[in-house]
Amino acid sequence: MAEENIVYIGNKPVMNYVLAVVTQMNSGVTEVILKARGRAISRAVDVAEIVRNRFISDVDVKSIDISTEEIVGNEGTSSNVSAIEIRLSK
Amino acid sequence: MAEENIVYIGNKPVMNYVLAVVTQMNSGVTEVILKARGRAISRAVDVAEIVRNRFISDVDVKSIDISTEEIVGNEGTSSNVSAIEIRLSK
Repeated sequence: MAEENIVYIGNKPVMNYVLAVVTQMNSGVTEVILKARGRAISRAVDVAEIVRNRFISDVDVKSIDISTEEIVGNEGTSSNVSAIEIRLSK
Repeated sequence: MAEENIVYIGNKPVMNYVLAVVTQMNSGVTEVILKARGRAISRAVDVAEIVRNRFISDVDVKSIDISTEEIVGNEGTSSNVSAIEIRLSK
């Protein structure tokens, strides 16, 4: 099985995550999974696009999955949030 | 070839787009493509998830593609924006 690593995309600047992915791939990891929820989903797509267009041209988007996750708040209330998983490999 | 329709996701409330997709599918369209750019990407994922979890349970996400589009501004400056295309079919 290929080595793989997960990068969680949050609210930091896009380039922080791009750097994390590029560093991992340059250290020999062949597969990186980007995970994001809610508004960070757009940023995850940006990270994938910037990595493959500007940094590592032999990276492919192997698969993209979307799902719904349930978030339970402090008072026991729950709400649904969309999530994305982008699998990059080279 | 299956009939298909495109729904462009912008800045309106999510349920507007959900309604557009549900209406099309109920009128006999078997495939709807959601297209979004930039920050609207998260909303496109929300639309896909809400349609299949709450409204039409036999809808599948057939494919998801991401890309980069170049936007040329008024003064000839250009910038890149990420885009997503989510193909829903039943």
